[in-house]
Amino acid sequence: MAVYTHIGAEEMAALIAEFDVGELVSAKGIAEGVSNSNWLLETTGADGRGARFILTMYEFRIEIEDLPFFLSLLDHLAAKGCPVPRTIHDRAGNLYRRRDDKALALIEFLPGVSVSEPTPAQARAVGRALAGIHVAATDFHAERPNTMGIQAWVDLIEGCGDRGLRSINRKLPRIVLDELDFLSKNWPRDLPRSVIHADLFPDNVLMLGDRVTGLIDFYFACTGQCAYDVAVTHAAWCFNGDGRGFRADLSAALIEGYEAVRPLSPAEHAALPVLARGASMRFLASRAYDWLNTPEGALVTKKDPMAFARRLEFYADPANAGVFA
Amino acid sequence: MAVYTHIGAEEMAALIAEFDVGELVSAKGIAEGVSNSNWLLETTGADGRGARFILTMYEFRIEIEDLPFFLSLLDHLAAKGCPVPRTIHDRAGNLYRRRDDKALALIEFLPGVSVSEPTPAQARAVGRALAGIHVAATDFHAERPNTMGIQAWVDLIEGCGDRGLRSINRKLPRIVLDELDFLSKNWPRDLPRSVIHADLFPDNVLMLGDRVTGLIDFYFACTGQCAYDVAVTHAAWCFNGDGRGFRADLSAALIEGYEAVRPLSPAEHAALPVLARGASMRFLASRAYDWLNTPEGALVTKKDPMAFARRLEFYADPANAGVFA
Repeated sequence: MAVYTHIGAEEMAALIAEFDVGELVSAKGIAEGVSNSNWLLETTGADGRGARFILTMYEFRIEIEDLPFFLSLLDHLAAKGCPVPRTIHDRAGNLYRRRDDKALALIEFLPGVSVSEPTPAQARAVGRALAGIHVAATDFHAERPNTMGIQAWVDLIEGCGDRGLRSINRKLPRIVLDELDFLSKNWPRDLPRSVIHADLFPDNVLMLGDRVTGLIDFYFACTGQCAYDVAVTHAAWCFNGDGRGFRADLSAALIEGYEAVRPLSPAEHAALPVLARGASMRFLASRAYDWLNTPEGALVTKKDPMAFARRLEFYADPANAGVFA
Repeated sequence: MAVYTHIGAEEMAALIAEFDVGELVSAKGIAEGVSNSNWLLETTGADGRGARFILTMYEFRIEIEDLPFFLSLLDHLAAKGCPVPRTIHDRAGNLYRRRDDKALALIEFLPGVSVSEPTPAQARAVGRALAGIHVAATDFHAERPNTMGIQAWVDLIEGCGDRGLRSINRKLPRIVLDELDFLSKNWPRDLPRSVIHADLFPDNVLMLGDRVTGLIDFYFACTGQCAYDVAVTHAAWCFNGDGRGFRADLSAALIEGYEAVRPLSPAEHAALPVLARGASMRFLASRAYDWLNTPEGALVTKKDPMAFARRLEFYADPANAGVFA
């Protein structure tokens, strides 16, 4: 949530001159992104009428080898009318530029704000937008494996250790071991696939009123089962932040919006409860690991792993089996 | 350099509705400000043609009692044509709004970037702009004492302690004691006064090419001797960041630009070397204090106090007496 690297105005102006976007008018470092630095730039625009962009510097974690996947995916989806920011290519046609051992990409700025208290109409719009990218990405040329699949959850949980998990909540070791066992035996494998966003929390959706103006932050995007993305989005949107207070109205609206664009098959419908347990485990595992391994005073806000243990409990409860019916 | 407080989109939209600026279109937390949080906002604009603003939340340090001084000063200077951002009053005419124990102000967004490697033409423009605010503020109705004057330097240095200063540099205790003694005996007191910015580093100046588009961050502004502000600006612009590499060309251009708008009196000219030593001591004292008292891992970047000990040495050297001639 910070800008890790200083880029002086003179260097920024020279960088912008490598793109056909006019001259630099303003550059503000913005407090977004955990593993990268971002600036909101204003230029005079290629047509002289002004334009805005997000400049992202990839600092950590994301492998530069993956950038062509992420950035050309944005181009592919934007060309099909999905509300995602286009990648601005430089004058030589490059998707990104190198700066020492880091990489820089210029991305279209999209209006909109991230809602904190979604309404059913907003959840419906998000469902439609999610289905839209699944449909639009079916003919995307590239593949990327999900680096945050079951094996990653197992590795993260092992990295926490029994004592670490117990320090978060004394029941947590038992919960995660039972659940990982269940998921490994019951995980669906033959559902329809496309490129999935895999992290579509409200923070990653820009809206104006009930309209989705931008789906952003595709840095977990990968090839995967579409219904798993529905489950991730369901877990992200249909509870309070602490994992309590399931909202049946948002749940119904999200699924309804999705199916208005891409109806779920009977097999996908049937798999949603298991997929939602997996989605909860994915964020429980990464949050627990980060909880135990983020130094005090770091720039990143630690998020409570138990918020996803509660979602897990909700989805695993047979009394809630009707949620996805 | 961070956003300390989360404001949800719904609350932000409600806040913006209290001003006549149209509807909220975008809100990005920006990585500026040490003691406050800032957002770059876009709205549909009062005229429907779009507008941008900086929303500042005052979190620490600045006393809310001082806000009317800072915010009405911006109005006063902007009305006289100075390149400073106007304060946007709410529909009831308020300069700022309260939110719990904090305060929020909406301020005009100005284009421009902060230069890292100024040219003489840019230094000249900054000199002119500085003189412009001194002239424009002579009839400003309010006064504010300089809370970062000699007594504050003494207090900060005492707060460092002999051992603390020695841990920064073993010569530092002797340097600062001798200098504080010299300054207390030789500080000029009868030079022309106005409102001064008192912190006009390149970070606080927005430029497009050679043109100053914005003087910002007036939160040290106070009633004081104009020539001291010239000295602060000189120390801030005419050296490398580490306090080495004095640039005679920038120095000459800065003074020339200033005097093109507001000629310095013979007494002011004569006082500049002492004032520049004081300006160096002011930043040496606050940086030394912050160096010793900022916890590891804090969100604020610690700045080297010795960069201003070197400036002090430069200004105190009789061989450099001709700089302000």
